[in-house]
Amino acid sequence: MQYRRLGRSGLRVSALSLGSWVTYHNQVDVDAAVEMMAAAYDAGVNFFDNAEAYAGGQSELVMGQALRRLGWPRLNYVVTSKYFWGLDRSGEAVNRKDTLNRKYLMQAVDGSLQRFGLDFIDVIYCHRPDPNTPIEETARAMNDLIVQGKALYWGTSEWSAADIRAAWELADRHGWHKPVVEQPQYHLFHRRRVEQEYARLYEDLGLGLTTWSPLASGLLTGKYRGGVPAGSRGAMENMAFLRDGLTDAAKNEAVAKLEPIAAELGGTLAQLAIAWVAHNPRVSSVITGASRVEQLKANLGAMALVERLTPEVLSRINGVTQGLAD
Amino acid sequence: MQYRRLGRSGLRVSALSLGSWVTYHNQVDVDAAVEMMAAAYDAGVNFFDNAEAYAGGQSELVMGQALRRLGWPRLNYVVTSKYFWGLDRSGEAVNRKDTLNRKYLMQAVDGSLQRFGLDFIDVIYCHRPDPNTPIEETARAMNDLIVQGKALYWGTSEWSAADIRAAWELADRHGWHKPVVEQPQYHLFHRRRVEQEYARLYEDLGLGLTTWSPLASGLLTGKYRGGVPAGSRGAMENMAFLRDGLTDAAKNEAVAKLEPIAAELGGTLAQLAIAWVAHNPRVSSVITGASRVEQLKANLGAMALVERLTPEVLSRINGVTQGLAD
Amino acid sequence: MQYRRLGRSGLRVSALSLGSWVTYHNQVDVDAAVEMMAAAYDAGVNFFDNAEAYAGGQSELVMGQALRRLGWPRLNYVVTSKYFWGLDRSGEAVNRKDTLNRKYLMQAVDGSLQRFGLDFIDVIYCHRPDPNTPIEETARAMNDLIVQGKALYWGTSEWSAADIRAAWELADRHGWHKPVVEQPQYHLFHRRRVEQEYARLYEDLGLGLTTWSPLASGLLTGKYRGGVPAGSRGAMENMAFLRDGLTDAAKNEAVAKLEPIAAELGGTLAQLAIAWVAHNPRVSSVITGASRVEQLKANLGAMALVERLTPEVLSRINGVTQGLAD
Amino acid sequence: MQYRRLGRSGLRVSALSLGSWVTYHNQVDVDAAVEMMAAAYDAGVNFFDNAEAYAGGQSELVMGQALRRLGWPRLNYVVTSKYFWGLDRSGEAVNRKDTLNRKYLMQAVDGSLQRFGLDFIDVIYCHRPDPNTPIEETARAMNDLIVQGKALYWGTSEWSAADIRAAWELADRHGWHKPVVEQPQYHLFHRRRVEQEYARLYEDLGLGLTTWSPLASGLLTGKYRGGVPAGSRGAMENMAFLRDGLTDAAKNEAVAKLEPIAAELGGTLAQLAIAWVAHNPRVSSVITGASRVEQLKANLGAMALVERLTPEVLSRINGVTQGLAD
Repeated sequence: MQYRRLGRSGLRVSALSLGSWVTYHNQVDVDAAVEMMAAAYDAGVNFFDNAEAYAGGQSELVMGQALRRLGWPRLNYVVTSKYFWGLDRSGEAVNRKDTLNRKYLMQAVDGSLQRFGLDFIDVIYCHRPDPNTPIEETARAMNDLIVQGKALYWGTSEWSAADIRAAWELADRHGWHKPVVEQPQYHLFHRRRVEQEYARLYEDLGLGLTTWSPLASGLLTGKYRGGVPAGSRGAMENMAFLRDGLTDAAKNEAVAKLEPIAAELGGTLAQLAIAWVAHNPRVSSVITGASRVEQLKANLGAMALVERLTPEVLSRINGVTQGLAD
Repeated sequence: MQYRRLGRSGLRVSALSLGSWVTYHNQVDVDAAVEMMAAAYDAGVNFFDNAEAYAGGQSELVMGQALRRLGWPRLNYVVTSKYFWGLDRSGEAVNRKDTLNRKYLMQAVDGSLQRFGLDFIDVIYCHRPDPNTPIEETARAMNDLIVQGKALYWGTSEWSAADIRAAWELADRHGWHKPVVEQPQYHLFHRRRVEQEYARLYEDLGLGLTTWSPLASGLLTGKYRGGVPAGSRGAMENMAFLRDGLTDAAKNEAVAKLEPIAAELGGTLAQLAIAWVAHNPRVSSVITGASRVEQLKANLGAMALVERLTPEVLSRINGVTQGLAD
Repeated sequence: MQYRRLGRSGLRVSALSLGSWVTYHNQVDVDAAVEMMAAAYDAGVNFFDNAEAYAGGQSELVMGQALRRLGWPRLNYVVTSKYFWGLDRSGEAVNRKDTLNRKYLMQAVDGSLQRFGLDFIDVIYCHRPDPNTPIEETARAMNDLIVQGKALYWGTSEWSAADIRAAWELADRHGWHKPVVEQPQYHLFHRRRVEQEYARLYEDLGLGLTTWSPLASGLLTGKYRGGVPAGSRGAMENMAFLRDGLTDAAKNEAVAKLEPIAAELGGTLAQLAIAWVAHNPRVSSVITGASRVEQLKANLGAMALVERLTPEVLSRINGVTQGLAD
Repeated sequence: MQYRRLGRSGLRVSALSLGSWVTYHNQVDVDAAVEMMAAAYDAGVNFFDNAEAYAGGQSELVMGQALRRLGWPRLNYVVTSKYFWGLDRSGEAVNRKDTLNRKYLMQAVDGSLQRFGLDFIDVIYCHRPDPNTPIEETARAMNDLIVQGKALYWGTSEWSAADIRAAWELADRHGWHKPVVEQPQYHLFHRRRVEQEYARLYEDLGLGLTTWSPLASGLLTGKYRGGVPAGSRGAMENMAFLRDGLTDAAKNEAVAKLEPIAAELGGTLAQLAIAWVAHNPRVSSVITGASRVEQLKANLGAMALVERLTPEVLSRINGVTQGLAD
């Protein structure tokens, strides 16, 4: 496994990491989580991504139980969680969801620690921006959580460059812990934010990236070329919002053209897609998901393709996907 | 229920809220508190106002016991308390009452937490200004209480605009938690402070308001038009200081003229008075009191009138009360 | 009793207070401490002075036991202690005595809290300056002890004006808790430091004073006019360093001349001496000692004389003591 | 014993101190540690040097057990530890070794406290620089550990002057606890860093030095003049990296020439070498090691030679070692 610094921080994370979105509790129980995390760990993965909102808190519970069973030394792994959506999406959003105010954040992180059964979370993220809370209030709460020892580093997810910079500058001016990482969606069909909007933040702020959805929710595995297969994510009821994107004709056509390139490099479509994200040196870790160990191992195989992404290959990939990425 | 931000903070509070002044312990026991708080909560109220001095600490005890019985998720409600008067008004005022010094504040908040049986109070207020303690000492103690996790936000009650600004500027300069809210008396006969004295603070400091006495101690219910009725607040011995104001002839005459306006809008006098306060967008929450559930429900009905307060209606109300408000 | 602010702080202390130097443990056991503290408290005294070094820690132990027996509300009294000498004067001074370094201060205050059986000490003092520790290190440790909740305010004892100002400025610049009080020796024969050296500090820094030795170790009671009486402090072996001062002929002659003035004002020599200190508005509290309740009550009687110290009387007192004070 | 301030700090340490590198656990068990620490303590040594990495944590365990048996008052001794290498040198270095990132430091110090069985460590050091962690992250973590009460002072070991200054300036600017000490190798054959590179730091930053290897790993005892004796450090397998230096012909020749100088001063070669380090007033403490009490006592005898190091003697020593020191 390759390890990279989380932005300019001193924390080292595996270039590929394991996320629990969608899968934990929904598709994966504690036994399966133990099996997959063990396989990942044995392959050198040390970064395990989670969020309060995944499966209404069950994802943190499952991962916490798995960690206790696995019994790894605490220094050997990095656990993260993210806050904004709340545990329960029903009812009106008053302090308990869709917010980054102090009340919510302080209580939400306490809840995570309890579900995980951990003393601290390595990296806590603001899962989305909250236009109704001053960035100062949010940045200060994140700092205070670190000062209290409940977290070690903090970051954002899907924030605008302007908001990230505002948080960083406020923290720098007040002597607070600064955000060190942003977690954006990033794959062959979603590039603008990482490549253009954030361009100045890498050097100016030392921002690191942990990216999600390297396979574009499965689109880049090629399995949606013939429509939505039964049992796939696109077929899940609560994932309906993804369906249109997954069956986009032009994108699926491009995916078809990527397949021979992947084969040429000795890998699968999915491996090519993951390797393409990992190839970007601004990316600290590519978060991948898996519901079976075989899938996880296939994902990990992507690292072998990274160095085969020569300028010439990248240029061919760009040609195929041109005009299709936002 | 409508929710509003507590000033520029990210905390969201119900536009109408429930206060325990006068009523808890004196008129309301735990059973009644449970009943009324449940009714308020079901109607969307999430802000419950209290103070150390109310009924000599009994009001916090009663609310604490009620909260334990109700068992709401902690994120779903906001509890406040206020500090200055002390628990016991007798004897000389040396550090234990009429002060905002560090010794008093640190110990007073600890006492509140014990009476409430809570880990933290959402908003702590300085109940009055203390000319004998530097604002720096008070602001720093309030900040330290938040840093220690005993409170989430802090504010003032009945402070001058100059003192609020001094506290805010000191906190801003030192990087302390800033005051986010002021709790002034505000009703149709008491308007100057909110509308004139504080005018610049809303934008400059992002100050929010939680207001008390929307019914002018009952004057705006119309019940004092014929003198002080037995069993009313004006008849309580320890409320003697209110009596003159409540029986003021000109004001009771104006109240009589407001009644048809209220009726026209489809509400009672009391509802009109509460709606008038809630109509001011600077007000984050109108604190109302009730000793019976019916009264509480009647108060909550005021929200329906807010949008009926057209410029024309407001102008008529202003005409009736002109010259009578301080 | 009259109460005064401790300098510019909001803490209110009795103008006369009770110190435990010399007496506790050596001359006073827990029973006697309880009796005297109760008498003082009943007379309005709320400030009880102590130090780690008094009787090698026994003075704090005795006062702590007395406080538990008396069971006063914690808000009603102010307990202080002072740090520098250490618990044990024997052997070499390496971190455990004659120092104000971080190691000593952090551990010394923890020891005091244990001996007192208290959660916090109201005011902690640096008992002497330490030229071998940077003022920055000392000021920061004092601040940190307050931030940790182990103390509420801090001050110095017998520091030079320059050192007090240095500590205050460092604290102000770094946003630390500033020293609010100095504890100097101050009586009719020892005036220069309070009246001249500190002159600018009262307004510039808001410095308060708690003063010790109002009776000049007994010289101002008149009892040393005929030599050192058996059983007096001057006769105690470990107080030998006081003997020459106590038997100074010119000073005892002046004391003789003060006696008729005291009698004229309706008090004793000792009461005049205490009243003279209390008359200085820069003095927050005059620390007095007593080994018997009668003596304590006599001391408290001094407050009645304060207002009788007219300019004319003060001028006569100055005439008598002229040239004898340092 | 002579005591010196740890740089400009107020902490006083013995000019000679006892380190546990190499010896504890490997050559010294708890019984022997107790015996040697007692002998050192009786001779006035108050500084006991350790590191997380020594014997994979066993050195801290042994010293902790010895301290519990010895039962000294906590104020009477200074315990240190150092962090960077980690507990286990095997496998890949990801957060658990070769780092000064926040994750590692927070957990490593907690581990030390547990192994020592102490509430705090007096001085914590960064054992080496870490080019892959921002100095800001490291300096802040060290500050936070002090703020949390887990340590009292912090320093560095084998950092460049530029890095020490960067850490100090960052801490000064942010109001963090500043590094007060550096622990470099320093002996007759290794002088440049202490004498030239750090030259400006002593006055500018008040930097203190605790130095290691006064005997150049034994070279300055003369025992390597005839090759590597069995049972010596140079013969230990895990010390192979020292062997070439220890058998350097020119250096061993110089050692031979130092012997008569040592004899002239009434000491051994080793005592001369230790005295030479202690003679430098920038050195706060010379850390010496010993596996037997006799050796320890011999080392302590070096203090008698310090004052015999006249300018003339020092000049002769310089003549002998000229050109051989780096």
